[in-house]
Amino acid sequence: MKRTVSHLADGREIIYFDERDDAVRDRPDRRELPAPPFASELRHDPLLEEWVAVAAHRQGRTFLPPADECPLCPSTPERATEIPAYDYQVAVFENRFPSFSHRGGRGRCEVVCFTSDHSSSFASLSPAQVRLVVEAWADRTAELSTLPGVKQVFCFENRGEEIGVTLHHAHGQIYGYPFVTPVTARMLAAAERHRARSGGDLFADVLAGERADRVRIIGVNEHWTAFVPKAARWPFEIHLYPHRHVPDLPALTVAERTAFGPLYLDVLRRLDGVYGLSMPYVSGWFQAPVAAHAPAARDLFRVHLRLFSIRRAPGKLKYLAGSESAMGAFINDIRPEDAAKMLNAAPAGGSRGMSPRT
Amino acid sequence: MKRTVSHLADGREIIYFDERDDAVRDRPDRRELPAPPFASELRHDPLLEEWVAVAAHRQGRTFLPPADECPLCPSTPERATEIPAYDYQVAVFENRFPSFSHRGGRGRCEVVCFTSDHSSSFASLSPAQVRLVVEAWADRTAELSTLPGVKQVFCFENRGEEIGVTLHHAHGQIYGYPFVTPVTARMLAAAERHRARSGGDLFADVLAGERADRVRIIGVNEHWTAFVPKAARWPFEIHLYPHRHVPDLPALTVAERTAFGPLYLDVLRRLDGVYGLSMPYVSGWFQAPVAAHAPAARDLFRVHLRLFSIRRAPGKLKYLAGSESAMGAFINDIRPEDAAKMLNAAPAGGSRGMSPRT
Repeated sequence: MKRTVSHLADGREIIYFDERDDAVRDRPDRRELPAPPFASELRHDPLLEEWVAVAAHRQGRTFLPPADECPLCPSTPERATEIPAYDYQVAVFENRFPSFSHRGGRGRCEVVCFTSDHSSSFASLSPAQVRLVVEAWADRTAELSTLPGVKQVFCFENRGEEIGVTLHHAHGQIYGYPFVTPVTARMLAAAERHRARSGGDLFADVLAGERADRVRIIGVNEHWTAFVPKAARWPFEIHLYPHRHVPDLPALTVAERTAFGPLYLDVLRRLDGVYGLSMPYVSGWFQAPVAAHAPAARDLFRVHLRLFSIRRAPGKLKYLAGSESAMGAFINDIRPEDAAKMLNAAPAGGSRGMSPRT
Repeated sequence: MKRTVSHLADGREIIYFDERDDAVRDRPDRRELPAPPFASELRHDPLLEEWVAVAAHRQGRTFLPPADECPLCPSTPERATEIPAYDYQVAVFENRFPSFSHRGGRGRCEVVCFTSDHSSSFASLSPAQVRLVVEAWADRTAELSTLPGVKQVFCFENRGEEIGVTLHHAHGQIYGYPFVTPVTARMLAAAERHRARSGGDLFADVLAGERADRVRIIGVNEHWTAFVPKAARWPFEIHLYPHRHVPDLPALTVAERTAFGPLYLDVLRRLDGVYGLSMPYVSGWFQAPVAAHAPAARDLFRVHLRLFSIRRAPGKLKYLAGSESAMGAFINDIRPEDAAKMLNAAPAGGSRGMSPRT
């Protein structure tokens, strides 16, 4: 695996990840670009004790460009995109329209291009390509964790116009937050209370409970289990836990990194198979906060992936309306056991060899 | 004001609210209806320590019916709707497709019809009609608070297909939750910490801060202030606070109830005026939990209304994608001060006499 660091015309970093150690990624960015926007602003909400980012420059961000203007495709002799190389495997660069900016130690936002193929999707990547994406996620998590002011790293993918995606090219994002996110802080508090109460590991106990219940399991291999959680909030929600206590992606072993792809691809293909439709989804890695900021959290928090779709039927979406958006109280229209049944009955496209039920 | 209680064919309650004390609402429901669905199920998420409702029967709920099949219009000799009366002012009835069910003491869900006029909206109601809606909200809050198992009452309106509304007729909902909602619990904890730290009232201090800053105020009258909060999460977000410490709607004085409508209508009309478009929004009353379940909360929590829109530009919506939906970390594309400026510059349709800037 080769990692090549370069810079775009406005000073932003770009990092290429290649399987071949002899890959050459030395084309310069030949565009003239204005300086990146000023740092976004952080504001504290005293009623919920949470930080909110104000990033007004994002209003002008690229919005659903046609394929021949895609900024995530490789450059060509005729057209310069965000990626100067004429070809790439996986590329990561600093977002031109960041929600947080690393200027002033206030975080950092990166874009991850999963493939150079404009019309592909994560679900259609090869396991080897997913393996390279995992390396990129782990690398970026480790590197962003060293930046002053970054307290948590979140690698995620938004997929589908229904969920607000503004670029079709298969890509994800990486946020280096200047704070521990509200949801992570709540999970840590719950894990701490659980340990104080029972002496147990909350994530291990949840995983053991799901494996004992069996009815919501979507797939298992030696290192990972995928399941619909018992208290799922979304019509289709799937969590992937590693079997070992691992706080973040850089701490995964080679075997764990390799085993992730086939299981995740199986889950993604089943999700699209439920209605025979490309499903909108959000998928992201929940990781322990950066060790320097929360050393105790590494012992409490287990890295895991959460994926959910807002599609509740072929022609219907689940919206976050009053109860969810205002009160934080979720109502799920599909029983988690029924969602698991639908996912298990869906054509996977991939192998079913890893399922505990075969 | 007259309040008439009756029952629908399947046993659900319907309550009419009329300005005139001689209103007669005695038409029976002539439909044959199946029994209401079983209670929804509550599941506890141990990782976020929150309750999630599973209500699978809601998948079959009415979805965007044409106007001549609207279930919220008055009945006619030819067609029986959810409202047996041939005319009404404000009507409240138990939801046929509830997220929570009162069977087994697990909460209750009601629908509030703001007007019998199918093609109206809240923003076009008269102040007198809003006054009647306020009475209905206060009445339902008081009554639902007496039900065993109801711990918090939430009166809210979802408006616009963009936000998932499935019926166009102007209506809101009332949820009697069988738990204190996650957001309310967090606010209460923050108010408690604020009091322990400073001795102060968090809501009073936030309101005083907004009034001192002035730049985000949208409107003020003797009893209420409307403002865009300093750490707004949404492109357009407006909070309405009463000037006095009041825990819930039933505790509002007659003068406070009467003063609410004109200010709120001004806010709603400005919101639609920003882009000259009918804006999708969620608007709801944050109230102290039911006294019997949380007596200390009445002293800590101030009732207030929060309204937000997901529209960030004429052709663009704010979606809750990875950062917001998964991590709870909001990024706002519009500076709260700019949103306040846009709202203040928008045509109100109503009187500007109450603004502090005139």
